[in-house]
Amino acid sequence: MSEAASRIKVIAFDVFGTVVDWHGSIMREVERLGLGIDADEFALAWRREYVPAMQTVMDQGEWVILDVLHRRILDGVLARFGLDSMTETERRELNLAWHRLDPWPDSVAGLDSLRSRYIVCTLSNGNIGLLTEMAKRAGLPWDCILSAENFGKYKPHPDTYLGVARIFDVRPDEVMLAAAHQADLDAARGCGLATAYIERPLEFGAKHPKDIAGSRDNTFHAADIPALASQLGCDSVAGIG
Amino acid sequence: MSEAASRIKVIAFDVFGTVVDWHGSIMREVERLGLGIDADEFALAWRREYVPAMQTVMDQGEWVILDVLHRRILDGVLARFGLDSMTETERRELNLAWHRLDPWPDSVAGLDSLRSRYIVCTLSNGNIGLLTEMAKRAGLPWDCILSAENFGKYKPHPDTYLGVARIFDVRPDEVMLAAAHQADLDAARGCGLATAYIERPLEFGAKHPKDIAGSRDNTFHAADIPALASQLGCDSVAGIG
Repeated sequence: MSEAASRIKVIAFDVFGTVVDWHGSIMREVERLGLGIDADEFALAWRREYVPAMQTVMDQGEWVILDVLHRRILDGVLARFGLDSMTETERRELNLAWHRLDPWPDSVAGLDSLRSRYIVCTLSNGNIGLLTEMAKRAGLPWDCILSAENFGKYKPHPDTYLGVARIFDVRPDEVMLAAAHQADLDAARGCGLATAYIERPLEFGAKHPKDIAGSRDNTFHAADIPALASQLGCDSVAGIG
Repeated sequence: MSEAASRIKVIAFDVFGTVVDWHGSIMREVERLGLGIDADEFALAWRREYVPAMQTVMDQGEWVILDVLHRRILDGVLARFGLDSMTETERRELNLAWHRLDPWPDSVAGLDSLRSRYIVCTLSNGNIGLLTEMAKRAGLPWDCILSAENFGKYKPHPDTYLGVARIFDVRPDEVMLAAAHQADLDAARGCGLATAYIERPLEFGAKHPKDIAGSRDNTFHAADIPALASQLGCDSVAGIG
């Protein structure tokens, strides 16, 4: 086992895109509604304003959870797609699509393997209620759900990465962030955390393949979560049983 | 199913005494150290100052997690038991005994049953790291770990009970607190939550049986967690499979 693998005690996972397929899941929810729109474009439009919406919250210094931001963005996107007639009840229901995202096929097995040796938690900008309902539906076996909501700050604010270390009373270099987004990993590394890049080439859908090179500065680089578990020397759960 | 059982969406559990046997577990850790002291009395003494220590924190308006309070109390208790010679390393290790509490024999099965229908979380004055390590070791299948640490207030502050409803975006009467302590349940009921009294006659050890009458005002009264699940119409997990 590598020096990093034996030093790490906690692995914190980014969730949207890294553990769950937000683009495919939102597309499926939109298609099911039969709205006659391009579900691929709708999903991308809804997600596109996520980072600027969080930035606005952080600039204004008042805490607003992601469910509320998703809803604000949704209202604007619906207008642009000519769907102003959608009722309040329908909008509330559609907004909860983010609580029902499906995991990538490897996620549950990979997390189970990692849990055999590490504390495995979320570190997501999703709110606690969203992450809890998602985990319950999808069978994601988190040891603990941690969210931007715990810290009153959205990633990439340092309070989030350092907050994980504080909560588990470990040093920052005993925590590793696993994510499919290099900017998130760079911010974590800036706080002293180890980093694992997870390739998710289809995060934005089959029509929009993503660069998955990752930075050489990451501690680990893995094709998926079981591959990370393997690099860390964790047995597959089947192997343990 | 009763009207209350169908209204409730989230069941939040008190942990120390309700889900885990703190007295027996602390006694066993102390006995293992072979200190030549009365382990029963030592466990009771360590726990006795928990409520006043939290009250001091709340009065002073500065947040301190339970791990830190446990350690402050431990130092005083060690002095009174003539154990001043215990080293810093030994004290740190003994303080983590609260992360290693054993569940009551029925707890894991009972929580599994409840999870088939409800979101099942903690609402404990224990800090998030403590509760996570305890759950991982004991196999407690929480959907989510919530702690006084999430709210910066200890129970029985209303922010804790109402905070559970806020996090899951439900009304207070859609949340039920389950606890072996009537004062905790009374405070929850005062915030509009449903309440379930769990009998734990041996919370303070076999030598100190506890009154388990509970108040008639509780929504449910159960001998243990599976009995609560049965009253709520939850199948046992074996029955589901």
